[in-house]
Amino acid sequence: MAHIKLPEGLPGIIGPFAFRPETAKPMRELAEVLLRGPSTLSPGERELIATYVSSRNDCYFCQTSHGAAAAHHLGGNEQIVLAVKEDFEAAPVSAKLKALLTIAGKVQQGGKNVTPADIARARREGATDLEIHDTVLIAAAFCMYNRYVDGLGTWAPHDADLFRQMGARMADEGYIRADAPPAKTETAKA
Amino acid sequence: MAHIKLPEGLPGIIGPFAFRPETAKPMRELAEVLLRGPSTLSPGERELIATYVSSRNDCYFCQTSHGAAAAHHLGGNEQIVLAVKEDFEAAPVSAKLKALLTIAGKVQQGGKNVTPADIARARREGATDLEIHDTVLIAAAFCMYNRYVDGLGTWAPHDADLFRQMGARMADEGYIRADAPPAKTETAKA
Repeated sequence: MAHIKLPEGLPGIIGPFAFRPETAKPMRELAEVLLRGPSTLSPGERELIATYVSSRNDCYFCQTSHGAAAAHHLGGNEQIVLAVKEDFEAAPVSAKLKALLTIAGKVQQGGKNVTPADIARARREGATDLEIHDTVLIAAAFCMYNRYVDGLGTWAPHDADLFRQMGARMADEGYIRADAPPAKTETAKA
Repeated sequence: MAHIKLPEGLPGIIGPFAFRPETAKPMRELAEVLLRGPSTLSPGERELIATYVSSRNDCYFCQTSHGAAAAHHLGGNEQIVLAVKEDFEAAPVSAKLKALLTIAGKVQQGGKNVTPADIARARREGATDLEIHDTVLIAAAFCMYNRYVDGLGTWAPHDADLFRQMGARMADEGYIRADAPPAKTETAKA
């Protein structure tokens, strides 16, 4: 049970978003720009960074939903998501993304952990200033979203298919209008 | 020197905000709603929560600027800000704010650290669901802002008077339009 009275049947962050639309609006906009806005990092790469940070923060709802969004962007490849969470240096992703995931992991622990050597490695692998900026901010932002979801003790379903549907919607439709809960959740609560 | 090339002479978060206006917009809006929007928590109380979390995250720019904003809201009382950072349980603030600061400190370490006992204490001291929600989100959001500022290695002045001016502007004018750097910084760079 959540720590405060949230609208029922809405999983993870959707409950507090419905509870407080004034803060949901900028939080949704930030996710949309960072994860789906114009960028030289693909949406799949950005969702992998979000998933990795959420995994490091042990946030079940965020790592599972954004992991599903990443897999959807990557042609349904769920193995790559698992590989990144387990050991990204050994995962089948680009050297540039590995360097950016290193930075994201440092930010997850605290901003001051990022070193000039981390930045130099990312540049060497071709990362631009904007890509480094967005990686830092995706990691920082998910330190917020993860704490929001878990700090309020929100509820989440444990149903892989439901998360696959949710991830596909997040990937295809984005973060601005996705207020309605997944159909299956509504059915489960009806 | 910052890890990426940011516009010069802009302290702390102002540099990356100018570098990436697309993400600055929702981040500014979120701060405005949380810290200055309609609430039964006073702006001074909310800035104290932001300052406390930033202090726990060891973010010099955020704890100093928001500490100055808190002091400005509280009639120039800088002692209360120092007392909250040092030991809020012994600080001259309400029992309700102490309970909310306890929750904020738990969120800073990770959302799952918040316990039903923490929530029960806050309710006992009169906190509403919305106040608990906003406390969790202020703490979570400053875990983002702090990591953004430090993860990019931004520059910050060490000048108490400049921060007093900045804090007064943040308190009086808010977070939406505050794009220009403090006058003193511009002079120092000219």
